[in-house]
Amino acid sequence: MTKHIDILASQYPQLGALTPFTGANTTTPYLADIKQKHERKLCQSIEDSIKQCQLRDGMTISFHHAFREGDKIINLVMDIIAKMGIKDLTLASSSLLSCNTPLIEHIKSGVITQIYTSGMRGKLAEAISHGLMKNPVHIHSHGGRVKLIQSGEINIDIAFLAVSTSDEFGNANGVSGTSRCGSLGYAMVDAQYAKKVVLLAENIVAFPNHPASIKQDQADYIVKVDEVGDPTKISVGAARITSNPRELMIAKYAASVIEHSGYFKDGFSIQTGSGASSTAATRFLEDKMVAQNITASFALGGITQSIVDLHEKGLIKTLLDTQSFDNAAGDSLAKNPNHIEISTNVYANPASKAACCDQLDVVILSALEIDLNFNVNVLTGSDGIMRGASGGHCDTAASANLTIIVAPLIRSRIPTVINKVTTIITPGESVDVLVTDHGIAVNPARPEIAERLTAAGLPVMTIDELYQRAINLTGEPTPLEFDDKIVGVIRYRDGSVIDVVRQIKA
Amino acid sequence: MTKHIDILASQYPQLGALTPFTGANTTTPYLADIKQKHERKLCQSIEDSIKQCQLRDGMTISFHHAFREGDKIINLVMDIIAKMGIKDLTLASSSLLSCNTPLIEHIKSGVITQIYTSGMRGKLAEAISHGLMKNPVHIHSHGGRVKLIQSGEINIDIAFLAVSTSDEFGNANGVSGTSRCGSLGYAMVDAQYAKKVVLLAENIVAFPNHPASIKQDQADYIVKVDEVGDPTKISVGAARITSNPRELMIAKYAASVIEHSGYFKDGFSIQTGSGASSTAATRFLEDKMVAQNITASFALGGITQSIVDLHEKGLIKTLLDTQSFDNAAGDSLAKNPNHIEISTNVYANPASKAACCDQLDVVILSALEIDLNFNVNVLTGSDGIMRGASGGHCDTAASANLTIIVAPLIRSRIPTVINKVTTIITPGESVDVLVTDHGIAVNPARPEIAERLTAAGLPVMTIDELYQRAINLTGEPTPLEFDDKIVGVIRYRDGSVIDVVRQIKA
Repeated sequence: MTKHIDILASQYPQLGALTPFTGANTTTPYLADIKQKHERKLCQSIEDSIKQCQLRDGMTISFHHAFREGDKIINLVMDIIAKMGIKDLTLASSSLLSCNTPLIEHIKSGVITQIYTSGMRGKLAEAISHGLMKNPVHIHSHGGRVKLIQSGEINIDIAFLAVSTSDEFGNANGVSGTSRCGSLGYAMVDAQYAKKVVLLAENIVAFPNHPASIKQDQADYIVKVDEVGDPTKISVGAARITSNPRELMIAKYAASVIEHSGYFKDGFSIQTGSGASSTAATRFLEDKMVAQNITASFALGGITQSIVDLHEKGLIKTLLDTQSFDNAAGDSLAKNPNHIEISTNVYANPASKAACCDQLDVVILSALEIDLNFNVNVLTGSDGIMRGASGGHCDTAASANLTIIVAPLIRSRIPTVINKVTTIITPGESVDVLVTDHGIAVNPARPEIAERLTAAGLPVMTIDELYQRAINLTGEPTPLEFDDKIVGVIRYRDGSVIDVVRQIKA
Repeated sequence: MTKHIDILASQYPQLGALTPFTGANTTTPYLADIKQKHERKLCQSIEDSIKQCQLRDGMTISFHHAFREGDKIINLVMDIIAKMGIKDLTLASSSLLSCNTPLIEHIKSGVITQIYTSGMRGKLAEAISHGLMKNPVHIHSHGGRVKLIQSGEINIDIAFLAVSTSDEFGNANGVSGTSRCGSLGYAMVDAQYAKKVVLLAENIVAFPNHPASIKQDQADYIVKVDEVGDPTKISVGAARITSNPRELMIAKYAASVIEHSGYFKDGFSIQTGSGASSTAATRFLEDKMVAQNITASFALGGITQSIVDLHEKGLIKTLLDTQSFDNAAGDSLAKNPNHIEISTNVYANPASKAACCDQLDVVILSALEIDLNFNVNVLTGSDGIMRGASGGHCDTAASANLTIIVAPLIRSRIPTVINKVTTIITPGESVDVLVTDHGIAVNPARPEIAERLTAAGLPVMTIDELYQRAINLTGEPTPLEFDDKIVGVIRYRDGSVIDVVRQIKA
């Protein structure tokens, strides 16, 4: 066929660089071998897959955290990598939890030297807060993580993605098989952007596996593993139905705030998250929806049993699910045709061509601290230790038409409303209403909402009044003492630095 | 927040380049304006969308051809671009058909100066075959097109994608609304790779539109148009149920070839395409499947009514649909949960991380000509004019375990089996069996299949014998006379040049 190229080049010099045909399978040699054709992606072991991907010192690896406290992949893979003697890795897990305590050893030994995550909990978080790492941890939001990946700052060399089922080509999901995490919203992003993608699959099923949350044109290697995670631990730490009267009062107020906010109309949309008060608020809202014949067009975000209940009762038309917060959510995703899995790029990335959170009317979010400027901290505890997560907090707060923070005014004798938050995750300009068990404060930037809530007889007061009330009950908290050393960098959803976390004085 | 950066930089110089936070909506100003938040992608007109995308001379634009002869977008958009005075464009439509005759004027006037397509028909094809264009047309396969896009040779600046419905964010499909084309398999690729994506939507529906074949994070602009296409014309030119005894004989032979090939086992897979003989072969195969209690795991490719029938009878478990060849296929895609839409990257791209065609047991394909080396031509007619399409022919032929070509030995007194094909689309090494109404020839590379078919009593002969039989009936055809000028470059699925088409002597 070289003669064609020569003649082509003589007539059209710009086409002279084209390649002549040299055989049907020149670029696809595996097609000539029936075994290769089917098994070319299957690896014998995790170690084998790591070798195939040519993991080297200094690279960036990623994981998803859809199994939350039940994850069995992150520690396992890191142990194997450590045994292989690879060092100086950047760990870009979509988040880290208490179960990731074993990573402390890999940080100490220099296997992991940099971390990007939405949050941290438990002993790992404590150790890092006390200066374990040479480099500060970067805390990003769920949407912001995707922007950091797209911009190349998080340049994932290899993504190790736990899936419940995959076929031999890599069509994979989290809704079939044994250990199911539900939505693979985080993993979908890594599957799209990582240079190499390894699927760790609990079950290898017949081709074509469907639904394919991750698709065969995204997967490089597939490893069968015994267990990807314990789905019963997905909701560990999350709220169950509360009977705490303080939480019920906050929930009732929150539902009333929505009702009278001006956004409670047929076709409205909502994200609630998994806190006790939000979950309870959903129930109070249900009564109002039924009474006023109002249905929601969609619910977004982390999806929980309480949201699934409303969907199955016909009160919420569509669920857009980037993370299934409990088993009920995962089961619903598997069976309800209008329960839709979405990637975190579609969910909340501010650099995406469109983020679903931009369509939100109402979001209910929690706070560890909120200050007089309505800035919110959901990361550092009152002891200055990182023990939370940025999550979708600043993403949805910035985007929703009505951002409601629910929090008890005082927790274990420590005020939630304070003069200045320890760490800013979400700027006050994104927060519209604070609902506490002692009253409701509306951001002065939204006077029309304050008017509506006051007219409805709700206990509206200024945030300074809430602050004074808290201080009167607990006294002014003793300021924390920090060293100079920065241990955490708080990245706003657009990638900018909104705050830093310093090492707490020992 | 600049102070954070300064302190960061003093402790970690490599972090000094990070940006300080300057406001929640610095990078998302539209979030501050409720109208902008919702309508930022909506354009008033196609011209408006073209201006927003900053289309300039020399750029590459793309379309999909899922509406086939019923398409109402390609000509419309090209007319508007021509009126705007833009020149020297590369047109990369996934294919072109008889309905695209109006493009002749835009080639003459220099609006279009280069074309990539799977095929051409009608007056446009004739004009180009007669030397209309300054540059030769590149004919690619469906899988090969994606490889050319990924490699950057087809570098799509703007994709104009017809969709039946879209919401204001660009979640779009071809299965809801009025004029439905079914699968958006081609468009899904362009939506992923084009620098800018314009959706031309017949209906703008409420957010969130589902299914989202094209997702909101892929769409830049959305234009409401009166009509995207006439779905009744999707199957124009395709086969209906045949009663032609010659076609029925070929179909019966083809079904018997499959039955005795060694690949007819429970869980086998198949692609049939839309030719009369293939469609009829599906019916004969159905009887054998029922009789022998064999079901197929999946059918792939262009999906037709006859394949949908088998799926709905439970004889084919899953349909993988990159192009819905008739309205029945589109309707099935909308309603049958195991009728799955796949992109052409997933379907057949040899550079994809995995192509579904690699999983195929059996493919039935057609031929305009086939030669003594089993090379197949599905592009140029016996008059040397381009009047066909490469399609998925060489993709599936290379990948399937059993590639069957069905063709009448003689068409309108012209032999199909000839000494040397006018144009090679699929190399003979990819072809296993030729089924004609005069007998069956097996590629000498597959002696085991010849043995099985002979043992089953099928009329197996050599391809030379078939050739002699044809020549005896029609006489040796007069060789075509060509000028030197190359008017078409045939790109094999891997991007290499497998043949060229010369201008026919006037």
